[in-house]
Amino acid sequence: MPNYGKPLTDVRLNDRFWNRFRETAVREGIPYQWKALNDQLPEDTEPSYCMRNFRIAAGKEQGKFGGFVFQDSDIYKWLEGVAFSLRWHPDPALEAIADGAIQAVADAQQPDGYLDTYYIIGGLDKRWTNLRDNHELYVAGHMIEAAVAYYQVTGKRALLDVATRFVDHIDSVIGPEEGKLRGYPGHPVIEMALMRLYAVTGDEKHLRLAKYFVDERGQRPNFFQQEDERNPNRFYWKDSPLRYRYYQAAQPVREQQDAEGHAVRAMYLYSGMADVARVTGDADLARACRTLWDSATRRRMYITGAVGSSEHGEAFTFDYDLPNDTVYGETCASIGLVFFAKRMLLMEQKGEYADVMERALYNGVISGMQLDGKKFFYVNPLEVVPEACEMDAHKRHVKPERQKWFGCACCPPNLIRMLTSLEEYIATEKGDAVYLNLYAGGEIRADGLALKVETNYPWEGEVRVEVTPDAPCRRTLALRVPGWCRAWTLKINGEAADIAPTDGYILIDRTWNPGDAVELTLDMTARWVRANPRVREDAGKLALQRGPVVYCLEEADNGAALHGVRVGQQARAEASWEPETLGGVVTLSTDGLREQEDGWDGALYDFRDAPAARPVKLRWIPYYAWANRGVGEMRVWIRG
Amino acid sequence: MPNYGKPLTDVRLNDRFWNRFRETAVREGIPYQWKALNDQLPEDTEPSYCMRNFRIAAGKEQGKFGGFVFQDSDIYKWLEGVAFSLRWHPDPALEAIADGAIQAVADAQQPDGYLDTYYIIGGLDKRWTNLRDNHELYVAGHMIEAAVAYYQVTGKRALLDVATRFVDHIDSVIGPEEGKLRGYPGHPVIEMALMRLYAVTGDEKHLRLAKYFVDERGQRPNFFQQEDERNPNRFYWKDSPLRYRYYQAAQPVREQQDAEGHAVRAMYLYSGMADVARVTGDADLARACRTLWDSATRRRMYITGAVGSSEHGEAFTFDYDLPNDTVYGETCASIGLVFFAKRMLLMEQKGEYADVMERALYNGVISGMQLDGKKFFYVNPLEVVPEACEMDAHKRHVKPERQKWFGCACCPPNLIRMLTSLEEYIATEKGDAVYLNLYAGGEIRADGLALKVETNYPWEGEVRVEVTPDAPCRRTLALRVPGWCRAWTLKINGEAADIAPTDGYILIDRTWNPGDAVELTLDMTARWVRANPRVREDAGKLALQRGPVVYCLEEADNGAALHGVRVGQQARAEASWEPETLGGVVTLSTDGLREQEDGWDGALYDFRDAPAARPVKLRWIPYYAWANRGVGEMRVWIRG
Repeated sequence: MPNYGKPLTDVRLNDRFWNRFRETAVREGIPYQWKALNDQLPEDTEPSYCMRNFRIAAGKEQGKFGGFVFQDSDIYKWLEGVAFSLRWHPDPALEAIADGAIQAVADAQQPDGYLDTYYIIGGLDKRWTNLRDNHELYVAGHMIEAAVAYYQVTGKRALLDVATRFVDHIDSVIGPEEGKLRGYPGHPVIEMALMRLYAVTGDEKHLRLAKYFVDERGQRPNFFQQEDERNPNRFYWKDSPLRYRYYQAAQPVREQQDAEGHAVRAMYLYSGMADVARVTGDADLARACRTLWDSATRRRMYITGAVGSSEHGEAFTFDYDLPNDTVYGETCASIGLVFFAKRMLLMEQKGEYADVMERALYNGVISGMQLDGKKFFYVNPLEVVPEACEMDAHKRHVKPERQKWFGCACCPPNLIRMLTSLEEYIATEKGDAVYLNLYAGGEIRADGLALKVETNYPWEGEVRVEVTPDAPCRRTLALRVPGWCRAWTLKINGEAADIAPTDGYILIDRTWNPGDAVELTLDMTARWVRANPRVREDAGKLALQRGPVVYCLEEADNGAALHGVRVGQQARAEASWEPETLGGVVTLSTDGLREQEDGWDGALYDFRDAPAARPVKLRWIPYYAWANRGVGEMRVWIRG
Repeated sequence: MPNYGKPLTDVRLNDRFWNRFRETAVREGIPYQWKALNDQLPEDTEPSYCMRNFRIAAGKEQGKFGGFVFQDSDIYKWLEGVAFSLRWHPDPALEAIADGAIQAVADAQQPDGYLDTYYIIGGLDKRWTNLRDNHELYVAGHMIEAAVAYYQVTGKRALLDVATRFVDHIDSVIGPEEGKLRGYPGHPVIEMALMRLYAVTGDEKHLRLAKYFVDERGQRPNFFQQEDERNPNRFYWKDSPLRYRYYQAAQPVREQQDAEGHAVRAMYLYSGMADVARVTGDADLARACRTLWDSATRRRMYITGAVGSSEHGEAFTFDYDLPNDTVYGETCASIGLVFFAKRMLLMEQKGEYADVMERALYNGVISGMQLDGKKFFYVNPLEVVPEACEMDAHKRHVKPERQKWFGCACCPPNLIRMLTSLEEYIATEKGDAVYLNLYAGGEIRADGLALKVETNYPWEGEVRVEVTPDAPCRRTLALRVPGWCRAWTLKINGEAADIAPTDGYILIDRTWNPGDAVELTLDMTARWVRANPRVREDAGKLALQRGPVVYCLEEADNGAALHGVRVGQQARAEASWEPETLGGVVTLSTDGLREQEDGWDGALYDFRDAPAARPVKLRWIPYYAWANRGVGEMRVWIRG
């Protein structure tokens, strides 16, 4: 620690809030997805073809390639999730299945190390001719990530050997040297994957290749354009204002000023950039990362941690353009934002990064999964009128209920690997300090210290950390004061302590003895949030947040026509723990006003006063839990 | 009068407001469009191919068909506009050009009467195989409309003869009789066209065919589906929620409850329905018209008279769904709404219909044309942020500036024929009464009465009507009190008169003598408008209207970030006549508040009070005149 990418295997989570999500992921998600990858779901579900493709590629079955060009990545994401789950939820039967899947993957590998079933089945002569859109390097990236995780958790090298052979092949074909393709992936992920690989192999080739992919991207002349001249492929974004920006490849990454294009690709790229910057100590690249971080999170992010304002390209649009009803806000993009935030945090231990990580995790990430783990959102809107999703073509990507397995199944396995690897995000070490970035119950072993965290976060603000050093030692325990927290108290061994936070963390520098305990109490008063006045869609509106949890109004509690509800900033929210509601949540209750719709007698426009409004009690639920009680309206931003 | 469709040739407009638009149409629009139809515009303009298609069809030139399948309709709409213009703006040179164009059309007619260059050039064996999408009956409808107008104005029968021969051919091919295609047009217009033809020919066949098209539409089994089974054609709306509703053909018209589908088609269909209902005295069909009128105008119309909320299908969506920024609001649809309103007015002389007609004419219709007559809007948004039109794919149909000639050039010639035929909408007769529906300067001859109207409407509220009977006679002069008018005074020969309006009209029933004069003074105080509280997008917002003119804020006057402007309902608007502004308009000035954007220091969300706001003077211009001073933001609905 913080050796990059190596899991914090000394974190053991046992958290009331996260346990439920993680157990759902293991109990429902992993078995369901394995069925999906093997086309064993009910017939009304689109087949995946994923494992079948591997069998065909290995010559064990006859047939054509099925699914998307990047279909291989599904098994890799699944394997990564399985690997992470085996850390804290050993399951020999599942591990045997995973070993079998890895064997199926290995069987398809070509003698030269190449492994992408789309081209193995469809014709190897065409491989590496469409780096822009055909995802070979993306598939390789997910393979590497799975391989590293599986190796770290199980110690088994089979997939790692497959991956390193594939990387050797890639290195022989792509790169700056004469005779190689001077290309880079249309969909980033291999950059961060190679950095994880480098962390376990120490092979400089892996670092060099990651650095090459980061720095070559967007150089002039543009590789994608040259590639297209050599091998014309349908260029979907040709007439879009996005064009190469869709791929974050219109400029070299160090020149890019704005978070642009496909949001998932952007987050993955920036994550890889941050890895390279940190490991190589490249200050200029670190600066570029901060520029893109600021753009993404200070001007282009929703209050839920969703990113990607537009369905067109699943992409960023422009500063402060954050429509709540036509948003894309892909679950994977919020997951990518968590990756990016963690890597910024490793580079600079500042609370700002953890704040964004927390914002995404408790809101826009877990909103992607139904509470029972069986259905998923791609798109995470902040305002839904079901009739509009049906009748307004511009909102048809917005679904008022979560969907079953998708043909393009990126989000469900991405959610699984995120939830199963939450250990990775809890704590970081820097120098002699252990930083607690997120508050969740469990045990953390840092160099010479055992920390036991007890909390009912995010529903309650008390966090107790019991510190047990192997032997009394001087270390710094750094406790994050979340950006949303306006008041807190700290006790060390029962005595009040007053330490001003530095960069968002209370640094407790002392000699620790067995039995020491620190108690941090965060004020969890729910507060009204306003958006920066430049955000057009939120002007004059308020959102409600308690701790890191963003709330919403649903039709199920408050009736339809939520646009006719108003709130006042002076209204106080009463919090209630409701163990039987939505898997156990704190609901909020506030006063509000409900505008009257009657009395218009068929008139559509008239010279009238504002509609009369009657006082109502509003019932708010956590945003992540919306759409678990049937189809209805939902709103985060309410007229103030 | 009110013999259907026969122009009120006894209206001579000489109106300060309309003269400018009409002269622009004649001076700029008609010559420009003739060049367009002959591919004589600069090379960066998409060719029309329209007249070339006729020459090829007539065997006078070799080549392939060019343009859209309905390209022929462009010349017909142009000819109709020319015809109307010749009524009040004689121009022998133009008439000679039009005669030549008519000859070119006639030359292409087939021996059996058929005339659609798409199929004449592409293969007559395929004709009548795709009524749903290939527009033969639509093209025929526009031909008929042009033919009737040209005949009525010039007395020349050439095009009328072509049209009646084409109708005879259609009647021989399509209809309920055994052996004929039991079809109807995918794009209505022939229904109202045939009713206009019937008005000049008196031929029952023309009435029968119009009635057939109205009543056959949407009957089960669905003709379009049967046609598709016989001759499969690509069905663009197959997977859309619209499907046959796009064509208003999912149900028989008498069963339809909502204004649905493509808005222009809907308006044209409903206009034809109203014609048939009135002429045949079909009370049930009249009831169906009222149902659709109520749906379109009481639940699905913008304050500007725009209709069609969505770019998907250029279509209606659902009740009270009126987004201001992603609206379609096609210029042609507002023109169609004027057609429909006039026909409802002919059926029932109620002010409600004239109110909508006026709303559309002074706002959403003329907003379609740049003040210099050289550029046009298809889409008429009520809220524009130029950057969003570029960067947000869901707003790319919304243009922040008017465009040159379109490949699909429906709106420009439609605007021309609307402006050149305004005489048609001013007055109607019913029994012994002459109804003034719109106030515009000019002279009107009704049975035995000459009316001279003097007004500076819509900028001033005084309307003086001098009545000169051929001989003293008892008649009713009916003056409309617009729905927006809250106070008025009436003088008859200088003496105050107090007559309560009936159905929106002040009925002055008296014996008229030479020199009689009526003066109606409408209170033109600008007022704040609210939308029905069910309209989500306008909740908490105000619009400003003065007389029939809806106002807007533009960046040119008020800076950008118009979402940060607030107004109060108590604010009074000061009106100023500005002859040098935007061709001469009354501008409005109100107090307002401008929210401050500074002080957020890069924060995107925060627990804060509402942003501080400073008082500002807001300058409002008529909506129709927006986007005549460069690219910038515009808003109609302002936060209240």
